[in-house]
Amino acid sequence: MPCGTKGAVKTLTPDELRAIGCEIILGNTFHLMLRPSGEVIERMGGLPKWTSWKGPMLTDSGGFQVFSLERLRKIDNEGVTFQSPIDGSTHFLTPEKSIEIQGQLGADIIMAFDECAPGDADHNHAKRAMKRTHEWLLRSIKAKKRTDQALFPIVQGGIYKDLREESAHFIAEVDAPGYAIGGVAVGEPKPYMMEVLDIVSPILPSNKPRYLMGIGEPVDILEAVQRGIDMFDCVMPTRLARHGNFWTKTGRRDITKSILAESTEPLDKGCGCYTCKNFTCSYLRHLMIEKEILGHRLLTIHNLFFLLELMRNIRKNVETQTLKEFSKDFITRFNENSK
Amino acid sequence: MPCGTKGAVKTLTPDELRAIGCEIILGNTFHLMLRPSGEVIERMGGLPKWTSWKGPMLTDSGGFQVFSLERLRKIDNEGVTFQSPIDGSTHFLTPEKSIEIQGQLGADIIMAFDECAPGDADHNHAKRAMKRTHEWLLRSIKAKKRTDQALFPIVQGGIYKDLREESAHFIAEVDAPGYAIGGVAVGEPKPYMMEVLDIVSPILPSNKPRYLMGIGEPVDILEAVQRGIDMFDCVMPTRLARHGNFWTKTGRRDITKSILAESTEPLDKGCGCYTCKNFTCSYLRHLMIEKEILGHRLLTIHNLFFLLELMRNIRKNVETQTLKEFSKDFITRFNENSK
Repeated sequence: MPCGTKGAVKTLTPDELRAIGCEIILGNTFHLMLRPSGEVIERMGGLPKWTSWKGPMLTDSGGFQVFSLERLRKIDNEGVTFQSPIDGSTHFLTPEKSIEIQGQLGADIIMAFDECAPGDADHNHAKRAMKRTHEWLLRSIKAKKRTDQALFPIVQGGIYKDLREESAHFIAEVDAPGYAIGGVAVGEPKPYMMEVLDIVSPILPSNKPRYLMGIGEPVDILEAVQRGIDMFDCVMPTRLARHGNFWTKTGRRDITKSILAESTEPLDKGCGCYTCKNFTCSYLRHLMIEKEILGHRLLTIHNLFFLLELMRNIRKNVETQTLKEFSKDFITRFNENSK
Repeated sequence: MPCGTKGAVKTLTPDELRAIGCEIILGNTFHLMLRPSGEVIERMGGLPKWTSWKGPMLTDSGGFQVFSLERLRKIDNEGVTFQSPIDGSTHFLTPEKSIEIQGQLGADIIMAFDECAPGDADHNHAKRAMKRTHEWLLRSIKAKKRTDQALFPIVQGGIYKDLREESAHFIAEVDAPGYAIGGVAVGEPKPYMMEVLDIVSPILPSNKPRYLMGIGEPVDILEAVQRGIDMFDCVMPTRLARHGNFWTKTGRRDITKSILAESTEPLDKGCGCYTCKNFTCSYLRHLMIEKEILGHRLLTIHNLFFLLELMRNIRKNVETQTLKEFSKDFITRFNENSK
């Protein structure tokens, strides 16, 4: 799921997303509740209609962003008090409030409101956050009024395997249309995530989609799919593009490197995206150096296509039961030349 | 002609320009000679191929930008010495050099190298610049080697009617495929331009296109077409969009105004552009307030469509000999609600 943080996948139109083969996008409750507000978006017909996105959409609960804020906040069992980074105004977010706003936004899939402990939280802290996440899940379920929205619960427990296991068991007990695995708020130590998946995935129902939140890059996705994950969201494709970075079958590259100044090659040979079919590295480098928005756009298109094409290939290889070989080949090639 | 200053019409792809009905775009020699240079673009196959623009293209001579520079410059009969705003490096631009670079860029229409005096230049200064423009025209013609490029001469003379008349006679004597009327470098007092056209247009050959450089907004275009002008270029559609401004049949508007926060109307009712067919003012306002690039893009599409649609309507009304009425109605409506 490409991230449409503030109601737009950065630089792109809904039509471009469809052309890339994108089937579902994500919207961020935290950003949209602060501006323009859930009420305004509801009056405008909901987020999908307002943004002219004619397909499935998912909204997060706002939890991850609130717990990543540097500004003063107060957390108790009731909810979280925080200051808006836009104007400093005080807001109070609770499971009930998050579900209400997500109802106003009107996505097809909504997320339970969870507490994301920081990456360096000790066991006690992570356990308290997990317990609260479970209580907040029950309140989220109770608060949901719309019957046309699917609510996904979220496994928490930080970097601690025993907590992740406990949380997965609690979450799996809830009858839900899909199950999510949450990360930690800030300072996420990535390597622990795969170990967490080894524990959590087998506990979650195998006949429902599993969604790993905030991940990932190509190799992460391959590793996670092999551990039973079906859904992902990540800002990397759009963020990398903004900084002139792009993915190729042989690793990540930087378009601003002077060696590409007169390259008549596409970003990634054999890639079927609009950018690779129409533009050379030489021209794209020029656009990024001149800070032309078109460059940012064209790299975004490529990066999103690259990741969605990877997912399409993953699905094919799941069907032919060749994912392991495909994954090994892909990762070897991707890492070999990235060094 | 939308302006592709640095090799891209700001925010848009060539395909979007075609969808808008754009038939020809402009590239700026000044910007491109400094980065990435005429040599690089020539090695990449020329500007149209490099930018993937599959249609006619025009490049200016670099004169206008050089004479608008604030940085130290030296002008003599040979040419102009100036410092690059990018890195302070010293460059020398002459008619021969400008034509050489435009040959490297490879547009279909190229412009003679002219001296643009400032808007407040006295008669002596404007006369000297005009005389030099005429000499430089002859040198530009002599320097042109490519036979597949059309060279347009430029009428100068600043704000002085006698000079404009003299310049038009000189230019009209040259057998050229089209004729341009240049503006003044900085501090252009717009109203004088229509008076200039009344003098200059009848002198220029009626069977060749006349190109008024750097103009204009909708009303300017209508006024100028009625004075015999066929071609225009202007950064206004793209620049206005960047600042949240857009044109409607009833004048210019600012999308960031709070009255539009919940407007479910398109930018301009009845407009057939992609933006108006898919998005509301409410959403577009949100994008601009959030500084989302998509907002900038969608307003650019609308403004360019608005101007090109105006040109299409102008052509229809020229054919049916109803331009005067059409123009009067358009301007009345456009100005009435703009107040």
